[in-house]
Amino acid sequence: MAIKLVNEVREKKPLIHNLTNEVVMNFSANGLLAFGGSPIMAVAEEDSADIAKISNGVLINIGTLTEPHLRAMILAGKAANENGVPVVIDPVGVAATAYRTEAFERIVSEVQPTAIKGNVGEMAHLVGISLETKGVDSIGEGDPQEIAREVAAKYTTIAIVTGEVDVVSDGEEIMTNEAGHEWLAKVTGSGCLLGSIVAACLSTSGTPLEQAYAAVRFYGLAAEKASRHTNVNGPGTFAVRFIDALSMDLTKLEEG
Amino acid sequence: MAIKLVNEVREKKPLIHNLTNEVVMNFSANGLLAFGGSPIMAVAEEDSADIAKISNGVLINIGTLTEPHLRAMILAGKAANENGVPVVIDPVGVAATAYRTEAFERIVSEVQPTAIKGNVGEMAHLVGISLETKGVDSIGEGDPQEIAREVAAKYTTIAIVTGEVDVVSDGEEIMTNEAGHEWLAKVTGSGCLLGSIVAACLSTSGTPLEQAYAAVRFYGLAAEKASRHTNVNGPGTFAVRFIDALSMDLTKLEEG
Amino acid sequence: MAIKLVNEVREKKPLIHNLTNEVVMNFSANGLLAFGGSPIMAVAEEDSADIAKISNGVLINIGTLTEPHLRAMILAGKAANENGVPVVIDPVGVAATAYRTEAFERIVSEVQPTAIKGNVGEMAHLVGISLETKGVDSIGEGDPQEIAREVAAKYTTIAIVTGEVDVVSDGEEIMTNEAGHEWLAKVTGSGCLLGSIVAACLSTSGTPLEQAYAAVRFYGLAAEKASRHTNVNGPGTFAVRFIDALSMDLTKLEEG
Repeated sequence: MAIKLVNEVREKKPLIHNLTNEVVMNFSANGLLAFGGSPIMAVAEEDSADIAKISNGVLINIGTLTEPHLRAMILAGKAANENGVPVVIDPVGVAATAYRTEAFERIVSEVQPTAIKGNVGEMAHLVGISLETKGVDSIGEGDPQEIAREVAAKYTTIAIVTGEVDVVSDGEEIMTNEAGHEWLAKVTGSGCLLGSIVAACLSTSGTPLEQAYAAVRFYGLAAEKASRHTNVNGPGTFAVRFIDALSMDLTKLEEG
Repeated sequence: MAIKLVNEVREKKPLIHNLTNEVVMNFSANGLLAFGGSPIMAVAEEDSADIAKISNGVLINIGTLTEPHLRAMILAGKAANENGVPVVIDPVGVAATAYRTEAFERIVSEVQPTAIKGNVGEMAHLVGISLETKGVDSIGEGDPQEIAREVAAKYTTIAIVTGEVDVVSDGEEIMTNEAGHEWLAKVTGSGCLLGSIVAACLSTSGTPLEQAYAAVRFYGLAAEKASRHTNVNGPGTFAVRFIDALSMDLTKLEEG
Repeated sequence: MAIKLVNEVREKKPLIHNLTNEVVMNFSANGLLAFGGSPIMAVAEEDSADIAKISNGVLINIGTLTEPHLRAMILAGKAANENGVPVVIDPVGVAATAYRTEAFERIVSEVQPTAIKGNVGEMAHLVGISLETKGVDSIGEGDPQEIAREVAAKYTTIAIVTGEVDVVSDGEEIMTNEAGHEWLAKVTGSGCLLGSIVAACLSTSGTPLEQAYAAVRFYGLAAEKASRHTNVNGPGTFAVRFIDALSMDLTKLEEG
């Protein structure tokens, strides 16, 4: 199933409108291009909705949020909802400051997400569970499966909880992915790029649960593939080979 | 001629003020440094004109336009005009939204461009020809040579239409470049960086037509060189080796 | 001593709040992650102080300054001062425009820096000595040791003057570092990332002078290590291997 959905992305080249943080814009665009999507980023209130309307998916990531960005995000998200375009929300650092918590609430009060993706600390925060976080990273423990189910149920969405084992849920069913590599945590924006990959997969056939699972599964296998390359000796070379791996066929990634 | 102009860039190390989009700032700066230019980016209204005055070239790229950026761009462009500093305009996504179309018109109503560079869909839009576009990419067909001539004539500028064959025109003469590689389309900002390279070449001797041609020719050969490297296996490794290639001598690139 | 401090960074994984320029955000985050720190970037007035309070270090870099950024920087810097969090200021291009000169003065009138880091032209400007600069690069000559001492004394801070020989001073003592590589000047943001590395080292034990020296020493050795890699053939491959090198042990870097 995952193979079929990834192949559909490569054929369709979905246009994904990334309203994402300033740190990862370049990496997200390159990773999405490698994967087979077509990135666009329009950050102004004046045209973020116009771009959302013609897109196949919208990503909202609050990693370096400002008020003008927030307004552009909400306009894009609403336009996406009105036009049947899937919306992924990545609540980066939502538990870290009151501003981010409020911003997330403002977004979901106006925009219906197709999927919400975050680490366990961020996702737990959305359903009132407080885990220890460090900046934008989660270091506390919790039950990712229970948290995924609760987020999905509360927001009527697909919940994707990333971690050593990624958990995807539609509020009832649970799918888990163990593929991945610890070096992803050494590449800034690896979580953020996954949000763009998820948005691309949401433009394919299949259920949202299958689509989200295909994204995290492919992503984890690509990281494993990159980590095994002989020329990879640290986080710099890993990041470069990871972009290469994102352009490969899923069957090639699974071969090892 | 192209060799002479590229060598002049390496000797002069022209200071290029890049008012460019947030996605590509890092890649543009590194590519320009590799090529031999000296990048600077001042995005505030408070000092964008001051920087333009001391620069050898100004690039205006509307890829992630906002109102504050637009004001800073116009101030920089006007200061460049007043001080004889060449200005390159890259109308990224100009056909995609009304806001971008208007923004471009506001810029050219106050700033005289030395060169305008875009893909065929963007350039066609500037002269009232509507081609199919997808986000910031052009997928429609048209006659690039005719479009280049029309843009050059309408705006009294050098027009650079990028594509499988790049076309440069001053409104009368046409020069074409077939060097290049399809992987450039897999690296975000490869079009945007070319704008910076063009700006650097405009600071050399020779006519603007020769300068623009030297830029696209060198750029295409560098892409070919990078694509042939044994360690290049995808868009990630290609992008890195492309930066390396931008630092090479033109003769070395031509050797293959 | 430097080995001990670097090892402390790897153990502590200090959270560093980077209020830095848009060009280098991605590179700075990846370099800091490789080195062992934990980057965070909150650019809004609404939460930059909240993030500063929970951080182990704050970097203020004025490379692409705007008024909203400046307000967020001052709020973060003040919160850091109140909470005993070290602050590094990088006055990028301070001598290039009146706006940047004034912005620096506004920052230091409200924020006490633990360290100020800049090239010789920028640092000279802070103590009223005018050297020739080109954009954000210094091309004039001066006495870096005297300039470092004067900056340190004037601002009651650690002064780090970067160049072929890096100079660190607390206003009395001087430490110098000759490790480094010319290719660092071909990687945009290599100076900016050093500011983040200094901030990470300031969270360790030892005196501020020793901490700052450990940062520049490690950084220079990492550049040398990267430059020697057989796969490094230009600025693109150098930058990637430099990130790898930043994740290595100091002893491994010293081996050559």
